[in-house]
Amino acid sequence: MKFVKNAWYCAGWSSSITRSPIDRKFMGEPIVLYRSESGAPVALSNRCPHRFAPMHKGCVKGDAIECPYHGLQFDTSGACVHNPHGDGHVPQAARLKAYPLFERDGIVWIWMGEPAQADPSLVLDSKYTAFVTDAQTFATGVGDLKVKANYLMVMDNLLDLTHAPFVHPTTVGGRPEDSVGGGLQVKFEEDESSVTSNYFVPGMPPTPQLAPMYPLPTGDFRITMRWEPSSNLAMSLTMTPPGQPDGSGVVLPLLHLLTPIDETHTHYFFAISRNVAIDNEQAHAGMMEFARKAFEEEDEPMIAACQEQMGTTDLFSLKPVLLQTDVATVKARRKVESLVKNEAAQ
Amino acid sequence: MKFVKNAWYCAGWSSSITRSPIDRKFMGEPIVLYRSESGAPVALSNRCPHRFAPMHKGCVKGDAIECPYHGLQFDTSGACVHNPHGDGHVPQAARLKAYPLFERDGIVWIWMGEPAQADPSLVLDSKYTAFVTDAQTFATGVGDLKVKANYLMVMDNLLDLTHAPFVHPTTVGGRPEDSVGGGLQVKFEEDESSVTSNYFVPGMPPTPQLAPMYPLPTGDFRITMRWEPSSNLAMSLTMTPPGQPDGSGVVLPLLHLLTPIDETHTHYFFAISRNVAIDNEQAHAGMMEFARKAFEEEDEPMIAACQEQMGTTDLFSLKPVLLQTDVATVKARRKVESLVKNEAAQ
Amino acid sequence: MKFVKNAWYCAGWSSSITRSPIDRKFMGEPIVLYRSESGAPVALSNRCPHRFAPMHKGCVKGDAIECPYHGLQFDTSGACVHNPHGDGHVPQAARLKAYPLFERDGIVWIWMGEPAQADPSLVLDSKYTAFVTDAQTFATGVGDLKVKANYLMVMDNLLDLTHAPFVHPTTVGGRPEDSVGGGLQVKFEEDESSVTSNYFVPGMPPTPQLAPMYPLPTGDFRITMRWEPSSNLAMSLTMTPPGQPDGSGVVLPLLHLLTPIDETHTHYFFAISRNVAIDNEQAHAGMMEFARKAFEEEDEPMIAACQEQMGTTDLFSLKPVLLQTDVATVKARRKVESLVKNEAAQ
Repeated sequence: MKFVKNAWYCAGWSSSITRSPIDRKFMGEPIVLYRSESGAPVALSNRCPHRFAPMHKGCVKGDAIECPYHGLQFDTSGACVHNPHGDGHVPQAARLKAYPLFERDGIVWIWMGEPAQADPSLVLDSKYTAFVTDAQTFATGVGDLKVKANYLMVMDNLLDLTHAPFVHPTTVGGRPEDSVGGGLQVKFEEDESSVTSNYFVPGMPPTPQLAPMYPLPTGDFRITMRWEPSSNLAMSLTMTPPGQPDGSGVVLPLLHLLTPIDETHTHYFFAISRNVAIDNEQAHAGMMEFARKAFEEEDEPMIAACQEQMGTTDLFSLKPVLLQTDVATVKARRKVESLVKNEAAQ
Repeated sequence: MKFVKNAWYCAGWSSSITRSPIDRKFMGEPIVLYRSESGAPVALSNRCPHRFAPMHKGCVKGDAIECPYHGLQFDTSGACVHNPHGDGHVPQAARLKAYPLFERDGIVWIWMGEPAQADPSLVLDSKYTAFVTDAQTFATGVGDLKVKANYLMVMDNLLDLTHAPFVHPTTVGGRPEDSVGGGLQVKFEEDESSVTSNYFVPGMPPTPQLAPMYPLPTGDFRITMRWEPSSNLAMSLTMTPPGQPDGSGVVLPLLHLLTPIDETHTHYFFAISRNVAIDNEQAHAGMMEFARKAFEEEDEPMIAACQEQMGTTDLFSLKPVLLQTDVATVKARRKVESLVKNEAAQ
Repeated sequence: MKFVKNAWYCAGWSSSITRSPIDRKFMGEPIVLYRSESGAPVALSNRCPHRFAPMHKGCVKGDAIECPYHGLQFDTSGACVHNPHGDGHVPQAARLKAYPLFERDGIVWIWMGEPAQADPSLVLDSKYTAFVTDAQTFATGVGDLKVKANYLMVMDNLLDLTHAPFVHPTTVGGRPEDSVGGGLQVKFEEDESSVTSNYFVPGMPPTPQLAPMYPLPTGDFRITMRWEPSSNLAMSLTMTPPGQPDGSGVVLPLLHLLTPIDETHTHYFFAISRNVAIDNEQAHAGMMEFARKAFEEEDEPMIAACQEQMGTTDLFSLKPVLLQTDVATVKARRKVESLVKNEAAQ
């Protein structure tokens, strides 16, 4: 498995990590997540070094977690601090790998590579994530799902939204013949640390989902999908009164944070938000159901079906026929390849 | 996987192939089947060359089929004829493999090898298949099932019907001690292009299934099972007043068309028919239930269990203890081996 | 797969082997078990040499078993004694492998190695097993389950009972802080043919399970767990009035007989017994439910989870951190390694 290890990945939404330990698998490594008594998130190997039992089935006692099989206890640094048997001797090798974490804006980030290189300044900039906890301006919901595909397949899906009218006819909506074509302007941007797909449709009637939030008959429809390696995507969907500056109308910020479970499975964390009707519970339930349906029932089965038909995770080895709309995905994949290569060379 | 590619296989009963695309897997290749506006059957690779999405989840539009992921459209030759994105440019490599088909007597045949060699004169002769659509003389039902075994294991089962009293006690019926033994005459025939097992029991009481169709206390019972490579079997079961010419009494023609899904799975298409009580709906329902039960509940589990116990699809490598009753199956397997070898040499 | 072949393993409790054939898989070999007309247990390969059908789906006729596919019959020595087809000729190679069995004390033992070396004097001594059928002194129940782990993982679990307060809080009971620690005396013993773990807690209050059987407020609590290669464990749990000789109070003898199904699955046969309230049906139901719950719902998931996390069956290759409590399991594993090595050298 070749992943970019020296990078921050989403380990979970802050709300999902509590005093009750949960298990995750990232890049094939079993991990247990919990919070210490002070509330700090903790990430340790989920495999006891004694008999390889899954730690998340054990109890958290104070700051330590107890192995469910024979009761060894490990502190937040991964050191074994208690052996309940015999004279209580703790062998020096008895420790769990500890993973650096960083928590901000309702997101717990995990560093899968060299702990010494875990620089918090490399975390996805707060300007892309602050909305998650900005309850004054936004109504935000978060969720997650597992995708039966390599994480780059999910990234491909997100960096090329021209799939929407075909894959999301009942959620994003729109008949292909209406929504894809002349009116749509697509632009790809790239800098050293990101790739962005921009979509712009001037003077479009609001989609079914936008109609309740946007009172005018037409508006300027924009989507920005910005990807940063290895796999964090910040998206913004706006509907603006014709000719007005972007952001002055309806603004829906989203996050798509993709963490590889293994070569063919991805933990997909999403946040979806809106700057209108922020106290309307029905609107909120509708937004979350929209996201769940679009990501779980429409995107996931399609991405998983492609992965299954490919029989490999090396897309380029299959010589795909590339279209103009693939530019962003190809640029992003090339960046990932280069990062993996650099890490291997170190 | 070693299959005879240059041969006609059943892709499906005509009635199962419609304007709504369906997916099949033959010899490991994913295939989508549908009909064009003119009603002609179409078989294309079920894997879009762009992102490898399964085409059968898309829509048929006119004669073309549209990819469910990004909307590329392909015509019946497999050529991409529409790209809904950007300037609509279609890369030259954008095409689906098209498979030659031939439709006759309610059967759609597919050619898995070199298209240029797809000679319709090689299709199983109509004298063996015409009954399927001959509603004047016969009442016919068709069906299909998946067998968890290599297709040659199903062929073995059919070319040696001495399993009947053991595997089919409640359908074909008969206690082993009655039905197998002195009265049964078995004869194997072989020519360049077929192997046939013949079974003859003179002056036998009708089996439970035959009794309602055959009024006399005894009759001459005959089964002919004729195999043609690579895996199409035409069967005839007759019950004739003693001493009368074969065919002058009850005639039940059957087809067993075996199409390899992969090394260890087979798509088994069957037709079963009768020349008596052809308008009797109850008799028809009984005949179909008999076939379903015999093939699905009795043969399939036995064949699948053998395959599972073998742990390989190379029967001869296991040095099976062969009996006189295996003559036909061994002859047929040798023919298949020789055909595979010839194709490899080409 | 590396197993100790020249050893006796439990094939089943006597009560589970009847005239109706059942299938087992031991060390990857499919086996059919039934009883002859005289009541003697029979173990044959479960794979017909003709077409590899599973024999246990066939009928037992007299002392012979009939193949469910084409009706070949084999006697208790594995020789084919009847071919119902054609002239009835039986090829010389038509035979099933026969496995030596030995039955005593309600247990049917099977020898997986060289038949000539199947010496009944090597069967686990009757002093450890006689209680199973000694209805005068003991009330005994037997059971079995499948464990998704290598058999040595189950042995490890049994030879180190310090897992009890962590894995069995609701059955064996006891808070870890009470039951593990100062009061517990652990002693390991080893001789040429066995490894034993001894646990002793003087003057302990009875556990919830023992309380109804033991009327005094405290007692001397002892467990002896004796392992003999390759994988048979005899256990004795006693609760004795303080200072009295062991065995003069409550005695619960148990057996844990582990038979490898394959590298990662184990057939776990257990017997549990008591020398008190032997006619009390409610006590019996409670004891059996205790065993079922402790072994099936608590031990099995933990052992299977460890095996799954290990991803190999070679424990030592993972460099486990060993504790003082692992002494017995390591000794036993070394004995098994040495036996496997000796067999390979022969």
